[in-house]
Amino acid sequence: MRQQNLLMPTLREVPSDAEAASHRLMLRAGLIRSLAAGVYTYLPLGRRALRKAETIVREEMDRVGAQEVLLPAMQPAELWRESGRYDVYGPELVRLRDRHDREFALGPTHEEVVTALVRDEISSYRKLPLTVYQIQTKFRDERRPRYGLLRGREFLMKDAYSFDTDWEGLDATYRAMYEAYHRIFTRCGLNYRAVEADAGAIGGEGETHEFMALAEIGEDTVVACDSCGYAANLEKAEAAAAQQAQAAADGEAAPPLERWHTPDIRTIAQLTELLGPEASRLMKTLLYVADGKPVAVMMRGADEVNELKVQRYLGADQLELADADTVQSVTGASVGFAGPVGLNVPLLVDREAAALGEGIAGANERDYHYRHVRPGRDFSLAHTGDFREVRLGDRCARCGEPLTLHRGIEVGHVFKLGTKYSTALGARVTGVSGTEQDIIMGCYGIGVSRLLSAVLEQHHDEQGIVWPLSLAPFHVHILPVAVTDDAQRELAEELYERLQALGIEVLLDDREERPGVKFKDADLIGLPIRLVIGKRAGERVVEYKERQAPEAEQLTVEEAVKRVLELVRPAASGDAK
Amino acid sequence: MRQQNLLMPTLREVPSDAEAASHRLMLRAGLIRSLAAGVYTYLPLGRRALRKAETIVREEMDRVGAQEVLLPAMQPAELWRESGRYDVYGPELVRLRDRHDREFALGPTHEEVVTALVRDEISSYRKLPLTVYQIQTKFRDERRPRYGLLRGREFLMKDAYSFDTDWEGLDATYRAMYEAYHRIFTRCGLNYRAVEADAGAIGGEGETHEFMALAEIGEDTVVACDSCGYAANLEKAEAAAAQQAQAAADGEAAPPLERWHTPDIRTIAQLTELLGPEASRLMKTLLYVADGKPVAVMMRGADEVNELKVQRYLGADQLELADADTVQSVTGASVGFAGPVGLNVPLLVDREAAALGEGIAGANERDYHYRHVRPGRDFSLAHTGDFREVRLGDRCARCGEPLTLHRGIEVGHVFKLGTKYSTALGARVTGVSGTEQDIIMGCYGIGVSRLLSAVLEQHHDEQGIVWPLSLAPFHVHILPVAVTDDAQRELAEELYERLQALGIEVLLDDREERPGVKFKDADLIGLPIRLVIGKRAGERVVEYKERQAPEAEQLTVEEAVKRVLELVRPAASGDAK
Repeated sequence: MRQQNLLMPTLREVPSDAEAASHRLMLRAGLIRSLAAGVYTYLPLGRRALRKAETIVREEMDRVGAQEVLLPAMQPAELWRESGRYDVYGPELVRLRDRHDREFALGPTHEEVVTALVRDEISSYRKLPLTVYQIQTKFRDERRPRYGLLRGREFLMKDAYSFDTDWEGLDATYRAMYEAYHRIFTRCGLNYRAVEADAGAIGGEGETHEFMALAEIGEDTVVACDSCGYAANLEKAEAAAAQQAQAAADGEAAPPLERWHTPDIRTIAQLTELLGPEASRLMKTLLYVADGKPVAVMMRGADEVNELKVQRYLGADQLELADADTVQSVTGASVGFAGPVGLNVPLLVDREAAALGEGIAGANERDYHYRHVRPGRDFSLAHTGDFREVRLGDRCARCGEPLTLHRGIEVGHVFKLGTKYSTALGARVTGVSGTEQDIIMGCYGIGVSRLLSAVLEQHHDEQGIVWPLSLAPFHVHILPVAVTDDAQRELAEELYERLQALGIEVLLDDREERPGVKFKDADLIGLPIRLVIGKRAGERVVEYKERQAPEAEQLTVEEAVKRVLELVRPAASGDAK
Repeated sequence: MRQQNLLMPTLREVPSDAEAASHRLMLRAGLIRSLAAGVYTYLPLGRRALRKAETIVREEMDRVGAQEVLLPAMQPAELWRESGRYDVYGPELVRLRDRHDREFALGPTHEEVVTALVRDEISSYRKLPLTVYQIQTKFRDERRPRYGLLRGREFLMKDAYSFDTDWEGLDATYRAMYEAYHRIFTRCGLNYRAVEADAGAIGGEGETHEFMALAEIGEDTVVACDSCGYAANLEKAEAAAAQQAQAAADGEAAPPLERWHTPDIRTIAQLTELLGPEASRLMKTLLYVADGKPVAVMMRGADEVNELKVQRYLGADQLELADADTVQSVTGASVGFAGPVGLNVPLLVDREAAALGEGIAGANERDYHYRHVRPGRDFSLAHTGDFREVRLGDRCARCGEPLTLHRGIEVGHVFKLGTKYSTALGARVTGVSGTEQDIIMGCYGIGVSRLLSAVLEQHHDEQGIVWPLSLAPFHVHILPVAVTDDAQRELAEELYERLQALGIEVLLDDREERPGVKFKDADLIGLPIRLVIGKRAGERVVEYKERQAPEAEQLTVEEAVKRVLELVRPAASGDAK
C-alpha cells in the first residue's frame, strides 16, 4: 500500500489521557481512534493487525476441530432470564428495547444462546463431542473503561463452547483448547503464563486456567515458579508453608497470657512500630460475615487474607468484611482490638499464624492487647488452613524454589463449565445407555482486540512499536529518502512491485516529506523490516534494517530481497492452514 | 470436515413459516437458525458460505484501493444529532442508554462516524482521494423482518465511504466502485442488473445505482431493456413516448365539451366497464398535496402515477395524496369526479394523456363527467411531462425495443452523496488553491448476508441448494454408501485426505445412516461435486456427479481427482488476491 493516501494519522504529541503504553502507541501510530469512552474505531493499520490476530485464532481453532459459527449480538431477555443471569449481571449488560418494547441484551458472552441452540438441535450423544466458536464484537458496559483496547465497552472476542457427554470427554476437549491457546499466544509473540485460576461460583468441579500476558499495566497478579513451571493467579495461588519448627518450639516455654494496655493502638502499623523486632509475632484477627453469619480469621500481622480461600473453606456464596457494629457485637470491643481468645464465632487460623510459638493479639477489649498468646493453648486450632495471599519471598508449594510475582493482562480463559447452563436451559442428550443426561460444557475465551494491546505492551521501545512479524500490519516498509529523486523513486517502485509479487506485504512511503518525518513515522509504526532507498540507489544498494536490530546494513537489492524472504517466508508458511 | 459431528441439522419438513425459497433452504440445509424475529444464528455451513462472500467482497475492495477499517456499532446520539438524522430516522434506529444514561444508537450505517473521523484526521487535499470500507454487523429494527436473511434486523454489511476534493474525483471513485461491484456479483454467480436509481432527498447531483438480483421474491421492480442494456428501478425508469399522432389528429375534429350525467360512477374501473372500447380515452385526475399545497396530476386512465417523477418536477420535499376534504375544497366535488377543466391549482399533465386527441374526464361536479375533453383547448398544457410509471408493453426510451419488468432484490447500492454529511459535520479540507472546501463524498453498500439469500433464490432446484463454487461451504462431498464396509470406508478416507492435501475443501459423510438419508442430505446442502464411494470401491471406481449435472459418471479415483481439480482450481486461483 502507498502511504500518501493511507489513513494513518500519526501523532508527535503523546496523548495526555492515555495511561497505558499500548494505548499511547495505538493512538500515536494511527491504529485506533476513540469515538466514546471504551469505544474505538480501528484505522487501516489497526484493522490489519486485528485481522492477523483473528486469522491466527481462527486457524488454531479450526486445527482442533472447533466449528465456526456466528451467534447474534441481539439476545432476547427471556433467554437470559432462563439462565438466571438477566438480573444478576448488573449494569455491565447493555440492555435495549425493540420497537415492540421487547427486551434484549447485547451479548457480552453467549452461553445462553449457544446452549439453547444445542438444546434445540442435538438430542443424541452420537452428535457429541462438539465445539463451536465465533469471532465477534461483544458489548460490556464497563464501569471504568480504560487503557484503550485493554478494557473497552465494545471489543472483539473469540468465544468457544464445548459440549461433551462425560467429564473424560470434557477433559480431552479442554486439553486440546489449552494447547491451541498456547499455540495462539506463542504465534502472537506474547510473553505469557497459563495460570491456574479459581472457578468461583461454579465450584470445585470447574477447572479453569487464565492466560496472562506479563505486563506492568496488568490488573491481575500472577504467581509463578520459574523452576517447576507452577503458575496461578493470586486468588488461587498457594505457597509452601514456612519452616517454623523453631518458632513453635520457642512457644513451649511461653509464659501465660498477659493483658497489655495499649491505649488507642488500633492498627498493625502502630503495633509494628511499637514492638520493633518483636513485630514478627503479631497476630491479627479480622471479622467477616459469610452468608450472613460472622466468622473470624486470624493471620500473622504482615500477611494478607485471601478471601477466596476463606470462602472456599467455608463453602460460602458471599463473604464480606464485617462492619463496625458487627465487630462491636461479636468482640465486645470497638474496631482494632479483635483477637482470637474467647471468641464466640468460628475462628479460622492461617497455618502460618498457627505455627507461631507465641504472639501478640487483640484482647477483645478496648485499649488492650494480650502478650504470650499461644496457639492451641489460648485458642482452638480446629479450623487451621491456608488462608493467606501469596507474597514475594514465598516458596513454591511443589518444588520449594522461590516464587515470583508478576502483573498480568488476562488475554484468554479456558473454563470447565460443567452442567451449569445445560441444566438451567434443559440441554440434554440421550446417552449410550438410553437415559437422558445434561450435556457437559466448557467455555473458552480470547480477547482478540485486547490481545493486540497486550502485545504492544511488550513489543515497543522509546521510538515506537516493534511489531512481531505475525501481527505486523505490513512486513516491509520501503522509504525512499527523496521521492523527487528519479533513481530513488524508481528503485523504490521496483522493490515495491517485486516484493508484493512475492507475497510480501509492503508499505511504500511515497510521501514528499522531510526524511526526519519519514524515519520517525517508520520507527513509530514499527514494521519488522525497513528498506531505505537513499543516495546509493544508482548502485542498487539499499539500507536494510530490522526494527529491533540496533544497526542497519547496506545491501544490494538482490541481497535485501533474499533477506526479506528469509525472515518473512517461514512465518508466512507457518501461518497457513 | 467430518459430517458425523458437524453441527448441520437438516430438516425433512418444509418450515411452514418461511415464505421465501432461500429462507426455507437455509433452514432445511442447516445454514441458519432464528433466535428472534429477523435475528439469526449462522451454523457452520452458513458461516462458511458467509465468510466466502466476505472474502470476495474484501478482495475486490482491496483491489480498487479501498482501505479496510472497523467503525464502532455503538454510536453516540450527539453525532446523529449533528447530522440531523437522530430524530428523522424513526423506529428503525436501535437506541439504548449506557450506565451513565448517555444515549447511543446501534449503527444501521456509518456516514456520521466516518465523516467525523475524516473531519478530525484529514485537513489537506493532499491526503485525498480516500476510500474506506468495513465488513460489519449492522442493526435496523425493521417493521417487518422477513424472508430470512433478506430482511433482517441484525445483518452483515459491507459499507464503504469515499472522500474526494472535486466531482471529477468522485466520478472516478464511483466508477471504480461500480466496476468492483460488477466483479463481486459476477464472482458470486448472481444474475443481477445494475439499475439507475433515484437519489431521493439528496437531489439532482446524487447519481446512484442499485444492484438488483433478479428473483420473484424481490420487493423491488427492475425495468430493463435487453437490447441496449438500459436498466432502472421502477421509481426512476423512463419509457419512450407512445406514438399518438393519429390520436392527436383525431382530436382536431372534436366537438365541444359535453356534460355527461354519471350517477355514482366514481372509479376508473366503473367508467371502463361503462365505456367499453372507448375506455382508452379515459383521463384520470389525482389530487396531491406537495409541501402543503394542492396540485393535480392528470394521466390516462390505465396509467399509474410515478410519484417520484411528480416530486422531482415540483422540486417538492414531500408529496402525498390529498384527503377527501382537500379534494372537495379544491374541485368542489366529492372524490371520484375530479377533472382538469377549470381547476384552480397547478395541473401536471402526463405526456401520454396530453397526446390524447380528446377524452373523458371528471367534471368537478358530483355525478358528472365531461366528454370530448381536448388537451390544450379545455385545459392548459403548461406543465406537461413524463409522470407515469413504466409498465409492461412500454418501449425503451433509448433504443425503442420492448422493455422487460423483473422483480429484484437490492444487494448493493452505490451513491454519490456529495456534501450532505461533510457540510453537516464540517468535514473540510484546504484545497489546492489554499481555500477551504467541503469534502465530496460517496457511499457504497453491499448486504453481505442478504447476498447469500439472493444467490440461493437463484441457485436451487426441487432437491435443494445448488451452490456456485465460489460460495459453496465445501467444494466436494464424499459419500461412502456404507461406512461399515472396510473398502468403502478406507477409500473414502484416502480421498478425503488426498483432496484436502491438494487444497480442496471436503465434507466427508462418515455417518452410519441409510444411503437414502445421505443422498437426500447431499442434494439438500448442494455442494458442487459429489463423490459416491459404493460397491466398486474395491476396483477404485467412484461415482462423480456435479450438483447441477443431470447424470453421474463412474470414474477411477485418478480421473475423479483430476476432474475435481479441473473444476475447483481455476476458481480457487481466481479467488486469490
